[in-house]
Formats: sequence, structure tokens, C-alpha cells
Amino acid sequence: MKLKMVYSFLNADLNLIEETLEETVQGESPLLQQASLHLLQAGGKRIRPVFVLLSGKFGDYDIRVIKDVAVALELIHMASLVHDDVIDDADIRRGRPTIKNKWDNRFAMYSGDFIFAKSLELMSHIKNPLAHQILSKTIVELCIGEIEQIKDKYRFEQSLRDYLLRIKRKTALLIATSCQLGAIAAGVDEQVHRKLYRFGYYVGMSYQIIDDILDFTGTEEELGKPAGGDLLQGNITLPVLYAMEDERLRSEIVTVHEQMSQVEIARITDLVKQSGAIDKAFQISDRYLQKALTILEELPNNRSKKTLRDIARYIGKRKN
Amino acid sequence: MKLKMVYSFLNADLNLIEETLEETVQGESPLLQQASLHLLQAGGKRIRPVFVLLSGKFGDYDIRVIKDVAVALELIHMASLVHDDVIDDADIRRGRPTIKNKWDNRFAMYSGDFIFAKSLELMSHIKNPLAHQILSKTIVELCIGEIEQIKDKYRFEQSLRDYLLRIKRKTALLIATSCQLGAIAAGVDEQVHRKLYRFGYYVGMSYQIIDDILDFTGTEEELGKPAGGDLLQGNITLPVLYAMEDERLRSEIVTVHEQMSQVEIARITDLVKQSGAIDKAFQISDRYLQKALTILEELPNNRSKKTLRDIARYIGKRKN
Repeated sequence: MKLKMVYSFLNADLNLIEETLEETVQGESPLLQQASLHLLQAGGKRIRPVFVLLSGKFGDYDIRVIKDVAVALELIHMASLVHDDVIDDADIRRGRPTIKNKWDNRFAMYSGDFIFAKSLELMSHIKNPLAHQILSKTIVELCIGEIEQIKDKYRFEQSLRDYLLRIKRKTALLIATSCQLGAIAAGVDEQVHRKLYRFGYYVGMSYQIIDDILDFTGTEEELGKPAGGDLLQGNITLPVLYAMEDERLRSEIVTVHEQMSQVEIARITDLVKQSGAIDKAFQISDRYLQKALTILEELPNNRSKKTLRDIARYIGKRKN
Repeated sequence: MKLKMVYSFLNADLNLIEETLEETVQGESPLLQQASLHLLQAGGKRIRPVFVLLSGKFGDYDIRVIKDVAVALELIHMASLVHDDVIDDADIRRGRPTIKNKWDNRFAMYSGDFIFAKSLELMSHIKNPLAHQILSKTIVELCIGEIEQIKDKYRFEQSLRDYLLRIKRKTALLIATSCQLGAIAAGVDEQVHRKLYRFGYYVGMSYQIIDDILDFTGTEEELGKPAGGDLLQGNITLPVLYAMEDERLRSEIVTVHEQMSQVEIARITDLVKQSGAIDKAFQISDRYLQKALTILEELPNNRSKKTLRDIARYIGKRKN
């Protein structure tokens, strides 16, 4: 089953969000518009908008209000991808050339800025100051995370704690914020929107760990890029941290560098896969998932809650 | 007389803003903090905070509220400078090595993102949704301006209109917004904060034209960088546009390219200075300044109005 089937009852609203995403990047600059559309049309799971909408269903759901939050959160995610590509020297994202590759580095930077600015413009329609306070704090953390990620590259002696803090900033906080802002935009009680935030945080942690596992276990077709790419770029993820507990494997892994051949990196990727590291990483992901499901039980019963549960379970089994 | 003397009665509040600027960039990331402080300590005129404060004086001035707006606007300006440096391959800004030069391009990008995010965090203290709407629109325009600036580089056939639109986005809108948001944060009437916006816009246009003139007429000591730098980088400013009205001068100017020697660019800079282009540019700057002074007359009389008038007049005569 595809993830989209889980929330197919949102299709009409998700189509509206897709349209709004495209409309939003129609600027006065044809060059910018072209670049942004290029990224939009490359797709993506739109998982953040889905969380915004589902969380909004716990309150006074008005798609005209909540769609701005949903689109804004997706745009922030996209802007961070565009800037990430500048950092990672990534030439391929979701199977298509990146903006950076197609145009150039400096243009990519400003495209990211533009997409981000557009998200702020949408968010400015939301009157509740709490929404702005939460979002701005999250964005600050996101930026700190980006910098720390540069610092942590190829730093093989880093700890599990470094990794968890990094994925919190990189992924979990924005998903948590998506849940919370969707709820706030729908006037949900503080007690409930805080729980949705925690649900999003746990799901986000689990989601990113699975992402990091898939970078080892996925096929190029499933991932839209070659496997082992994270390690090649010096991103020390959970499977790598566990694999390095084996001294022999550690001595192989620390030899990884930017210019390593595809054959060499594939050999090391295989070694990591054959170790127990993947299983251990899955266990951590599952622990976060269980926490997400537990907090979900404390929320009022409705269709949305059931869907959030299905999504959380799906994430634990996903292949891309 | 120094510009600072004009608004010396704001000194206590400006010191507070300086402190808040430093406090704000104290993040969890030592690397980021170091980079941001580096930029902060390089100084700058803090002209945007000054406009925020002076505009706030038209209403219910509370430094505890208004300082967040003042600091936020200065941070946005700084973030754009940091990203500009990535674009311009600028190694020197205000006489000090740029962040990009000191660290690297990718780090500079994220430092800019971080500084910008911090400005949003401060702005989130401001409850009036109008402030957020105005600011976000300005930031979108700022980003479009940055992209257009790349496109317009070394494009010698551009029009006066292209230039004016570019400096509007690059400088005038943020100064206009500083005036307007300072007023809004102090609860000023719509009629007044709109006029302050227009005042800021005209002053900003004039300010940037003077800046572009000084790039030709200033000494390296006054500018903190060699003269003629804009032209060398392909930025076609107002003096250049006027100089190109002379066919012989035009044929010299269109030969300018990135790798041109300092001696060659100095020779062309001198040709521009000896033409009537500088005077013509001054006339346009002055026209904007007069519009600024005219709109100012429509505002209630107070000390702040007098100071805004003095600043506007100072700008027309400034040397750096």
C-alpha cells in the first residue's frame, strides 16, 4: 500500500495545497519562478502539509485558513532542501538535477531565500502570535542544525547524542511544528496542540532514522539517488554509528572521504548492511514510534487520530 | 559633523540595541556565534534601527517593544549582506574580511540564514499581524531583487528603470519598512505610518544613489574598499548609466569584466568621474530627497520629525 492511500480522504484539500504551492512561487522574476517550479514539480511526499491538515482536524478546521500553514511548512522544508543542496554538492535530488546543478550555487542560495520568504508571506495571514513564536524558534534551530551538520561531517568520533540532536533539528522539529501549527490555526486547546507537537517530534525522529537506514538498504530506484550517499558525503548516521562499534568495521569506515570511488563506497555500504547496525537502528526508530503511538492515545478519538496512527505505523515499514 | 551627532539624543536606546544585537546572536552554536559577532562588531551605521526608533516616536514609544523591531530590521539587513558577499565574491566588507572569506561560502550561507531566523524570532514578539504582512512582503521583494541583481550584472544595455527597481528592492524598501514598522509597533495611525513608509522609501532611494556615487568618488579609506568595485563586479549603477550616454565612454565601459586589472578599472572610474555623470546622479538623488522632505512636512511636528529632516539632509552630503 502507498502512503497516499492512508490519507486519501484529504485528497481534495491536498490538491488545493498543490495548487497553492505552485501559485505561491509565481513571482515577478521569471528565473525564480522557473527554478521554484522545477523543485515543486519534482514532487515529494508533502508529509508536512499532511500533518498540518490532520492536526487541524482536532479543532475548527477551515481549509482556507489552514492551507496557508500547510503550504508555508512545505515551502520551509523546500527552502532548506535547496540550501542543503548547495552544502552537499548534491547534483541529484528526487531523481532530478538540483537547482544548484542546473543553475549555479549562488542562484540556488537566493532561490532558497525566495521560497522561504514566500512561506513567511503566507504565514503572515495567521493572526495568532503563538504560531509565529513557535515557527521562528523552530527555524532558528533548523539553521543551527545546518551549521552543526557541516561541523559534524566526517567527524567519526561523534556520539549517538550528537546524531539525535542533529536529526531533531534537521527533521523532527519541523514535523512537530507542522502538527502544532495545524492545531493552533484551528484553535485547538493548548493541552492538545502540545501533545500533537510531541507526537510529531517522535514521528519525525523515527522518520529520519528510517531515512538514514534506507540510504543503506534502498535501491537507487527507490531512493532516486545512489545508496550510501550519506556516508560518502560524511554524514555519520545511526547505522554508521552502530557499525563503528565493531572495531574492524570502524577501521574501514574512517577511511571514507569525499573522493572515494562508487565501488569502494558500495563495498563499505554492504559491510554496514551485513552488520547488525541496521537492526539496531530500526529498534531505535521503533522506540520513537512507540512513543508517538502512546501520546496519540491521549488525544480525542476521531478519524484524524486513526489516520495519524496509520501514518506512524506506515513510516516504520516504508521503503522510500 | 558626523551622522551620529544628528540623533545623539537616541544614544541610550541605540546602546541598548547594540547590546540586544549581540545578545541575539548568542546561539547554541559557538561557530555561528563567532561568525555573527564578527559581522556585528564590524559596525555599520545602524541606520535602520535609527529609522525604527524615530518613527516610533510618532506614537506610544516603548523601547522594550520597539527595540525588537529595530534589532530585527538590522539583522535582516546584515543577513542580506552576508548572502550578498557569497554572491559578490567580496573579500572585504567595511574594511574587514567577510565571513565568506574567513570561513567559507557554504558557512556564509547558513550564517545568513541563522541571522535572518533570529530576526524572525524577535519579530514574533510583535503582535500586530499587519507588521508581519508588511515585513514578509518586503523580504520577498528583497529576494527577488537579489536574483535580478545577478541577472543584471554586466548587462550594459539595461535601463534607468531597471536600476531604480533594483535599488528600490535592494535598499529603499527595507528603510521604508523600518520607518513603517517602527510606527506600527508604537500604535501610530495608518495615515501617519503610511507617510513614514513613503518618507523612508524616498530617503532610501536617495541613500542608495549616493552610495553608488561614492563608489566612484570616495577614497579607499572612506569606503573601506577600493573605489570602482561596483563596476568591476558588473553592477551597473546610476553614474555608469549616465556615463554610457556618451558613446566614447560607453565603448570603454562595456569592456569591463571580472578579471580586469585594478589599474584599468581605476582609469575607467576616472573617466566616469570626469564626465557629467556624477552630477546627473546627484540630481536624481536630490529629487528623491526633496520628495522625502515634502512628505515629512505632512507629519505632526515633534523632535523626531526634525531629526528625520536632518538625517535626510545629511544623507545628501555624506562622504561614506
